[in-house]
Amino acid sequence: MAETIKINEAQLWQRHMDMSQIGSIGNGGVNRQALSAEDITARRVLIDRAVARGYDVKVDAIANLYFIRKGRIDGAPYVATGSHMDSQPQGGRFDGIYGVLAGLEVLEALDEAGEETDHPLLVVAWTNEEGSRFSPGAMGSSVFAGVRDLSDFVDVTDADGVAFSEALEQTLAATPDVPEWESKPQIKAYVEAHIEQGPVLEARKLETGVVTGIQGARMFEIEVSGCAAHAGTAPMATRSDALVATMAMLSDLKAFMDDPEDMIRFTVGRMQVFPNSPNVVPDLVRFTIDLRHPDQSILQSKGDGIGPICRENTGTCGLTIRETFTRNPCIFSEPIVSVIEESARELSLSACQLTSGAFHDALFLADICPTGMIFIPSVGGISHNPAEYSEPAHLAAGTRLLASTMVRLASNDK
Amino acid sequence: MAETIKINEAQLWQRHMDMSQIGSIGNGGVNRQALSAEDITARRVLIDRAVARGYDVKVDAIANLYFIRKGRIDGAPYVATGSHMDSQPQGGRFDGIYGVLAGLEVLEALDEAGEETDHPLLVVAWTNEEGSRFSPGAMGSSVFAGVRDLSDFVDVTDADGVAFSEALEQTLAATPDVPEWESKPQIKAYVEAHIEQGPVLEARKLETGVVTGIQGARMFEIEVSGCAAHAGTAPMATRSDALVATMAMLSDLKAFMDDPEDMIRFTVGRMQVFPNSPNVVPDLVRFTIDLRHPDQSILQSKGDGIGPICRENTGTCGLTIRETFTRNPCIFSEPIVSVIEESARELSLSACQLTSGAFHDALFLADICPTGMIFIPSVGGISHNPAEYSEPAHLAAGTRLLASTMVRLASNDK
Repeated sequence: MAETIKINEAQLWQRHMDMSQIGSIGNGGVNRQALSAEDITARRVLIDRAVARGYDVKVDAIANLYFIRKGRIDGAPYVATGSHMDSQPQGGRFDGIYGVLAGLEVLEALDEAGEETDHPLLVVAWTNEEGSRFSPGAMGSSVFAGVRDLSDFVDVTDADGVAFSEALEQTLAATPDVPEWESKPQIKAYVEAHIEQGPVLEARKLETGVVTGIQGARMFEIEVSGCAAHAGTAPMATRSDALVATMAMLSDLKAFMDDPEDMIRFTVGRMQVFPNSPNVVPDLVRFTIDLRHPDQSILQSKGDGIGPICRENTGTCGLTIRETFTRNPCIFSEPIVSVIEESARELSLSACQLTSGAFHDALFLADICPTGMIFIPSVGGISHNPAEYSEPAHLAAGTRLLASTMVRLASNDK
Repeated sequence: MAETIKINEAQLWQRHMDMSQIGSIGNGGVNRQALSAEDITARRVLIDRAVARGYDVKVDAIANLYFIRKGRIDGAPYVATGSHMDSQPQGGRFDGIYGVLAGLEVLEALDEAGEETDHPLLVVAWTNEEGSRFSPGAMGSSVFAGVRDLSDFVDVTDADGVAFSEALEQTLAATPDVPEWESKPQIKAYVEAHIEQGPVLEARKLETGVVTGIQGARMFEIEVSGCAAHAGTAPMATRSDALVATMAMLSDLKAFMDDPEDMIRFTVGRMQVFPNSPNVVPDLVRFTIDLRHPDQSILQSKGDGIGPICRENTGTCGLTIRETFTRNPCIFSEPIVSVIEESARELSLSACQLTSGAFHDALFLADICPTGMIFIPSVGGISHNPAEYSEPAHLAAGTRLLASTMVRLASNDK
């Protein structure tokens, strides 16, 4: 089999470059946030391409987009792959979209090789994995997995006050030609291809990585409310300065999260100050915390410490803390890991096992079906940054590994 | 004289309430930032009112707006008053606009009383005192005083990227009926009426305050540049997190600015984090510092300490610091202070001397002519806040004091 399936490296690369023009911010950067005009344009490109190749295209209520290649056995559960098309506001050209483009490339390569499968194949573009415009991330895959409900998200707004429900409606309205998939497809196995976004594969000079699991994460939205006052007249002792209280919280949190092993990931990525005027004492600060660790007990204890530390530092300000996302560390299916490793050996691709520092849609799929992931190297380990880069040969190698893995999993013997 | 000039308290109050509808944000709050559509509307209201009363209206290159009432002596220097029409984004109904409306009320009250003056009278609405949309503040008055040049500000942009020069052009284009005042008017004296924005007059149950000077201020814009990275994958030790560096700076600055006498005013009012996404390590933080003190030596030493403290805390990040505004403490003209006090006695208005914690356009006028200010009480000392409030009777009392003071100063004997 492996000999007959060809991945066209130049074509795959060009498709990435073409896609990176949708929401291009220069320097290789992409701003194609979930349910934005750019996301809608990207969806259209893929739908038109899939329809032209004869694949069925479907969409669900949260705008997850499905591309279907039929199998020999009618009604058999799907062997699925996919990832997301949305990017960070200052994102790169490969994060997420690679898994979608690699999946479609696999379908086409199988057609060109005349390769049929017992089980049907499914490529999914999951809605809002990044969570940068609408928090939390992985909305599409977590709703698909039944971990969250679409109704949980309707009131979420972006920084401009646009409701998730409104953006979702606009996105769905832009694809009136795509029928809604009313029944949820049954998935036999899910394998997601993604760039590593870390330094391991490059440092070890490997072509691919076989992912054994994903570290756990807890995310928080914190709101500190004070009282606006004139910067020139209000004595410091009388102020309820929301930013001063925030600084005190973050200073203590930084000390609390200090880790000599450097395994804890603690990030305050978003902060908004109101009214945000140079000569007005801030009356409101909103900020996010992103906490991750591969060890469940540490994730638990460090995450549980955030509330008390914030409360100790409020001064005269008010405080609300919401945990917006909680996910225990995930261990992928051993049989899937084995099939990916067998495929890599057959294709003579160098590979190692590793865990994912980032979370992915696969985290949620793992709840409902045997799941695995394939990584390819990220130059410098850089991601969520316009400088994100992966070699054309590595994009193609990961796609070949995905094709071989999917064909094996789609056989009735597996 | 004092007996014949009447200030209509109800009419003055209604004019404040009408004006507060332009840019109303509810709860009594006003968002009428410099050179915005709301500022343009407010200008139109005043121009039409002044023209209807027969006053000459002029404008200059930075859109300072002038209302002129002729005096007996042709070509004599003006006795001037005024303030600003722009507000904070979450401002109140009295800050600034009171001084403009009080000035126009004085002109009309003199007409109604048949009171002529030797010197002509001038009411000025200075452009962009607040500095909240375009930093620094007091652009109009500082250019008028020759302390700054209009060309210093052309490249300043607001948070949406709109250039000051563009907003200025739009504002000027909206008043084609108002001729440009090409020669700068000579000012004999300047007296500005303003709400106190602090707690002194209310605590002492006084109707008016005679301002003897304004504390000094230094303002800074600081930019900390790091490197964006994925919140889940980038080890803490490898990060250049611009927000972490900013926190370290602010923690040390807070300790450095600690003042047992509580005379230092130290405010970080604006902070912007980029890309401002929950799961991306921030690569850029911009923030402002507003530092004030009535003692020149302390203002100097504390301001000079900001740069070194920031530099000690950059870690692996980059740093740029710009001092955007510097102003030494100001002492108002003793003769002007005396005339205001005499007028208060004559009108049987209770008054005390005090210094201003906030800065005002009068700060710059003091460079070029004898200058003073009249304060009225602010309930709770609250300002730069929708809850800002002053009593109708106090608005009228300050305006009566302004009228009497201007008439005295406009006499050829003074």
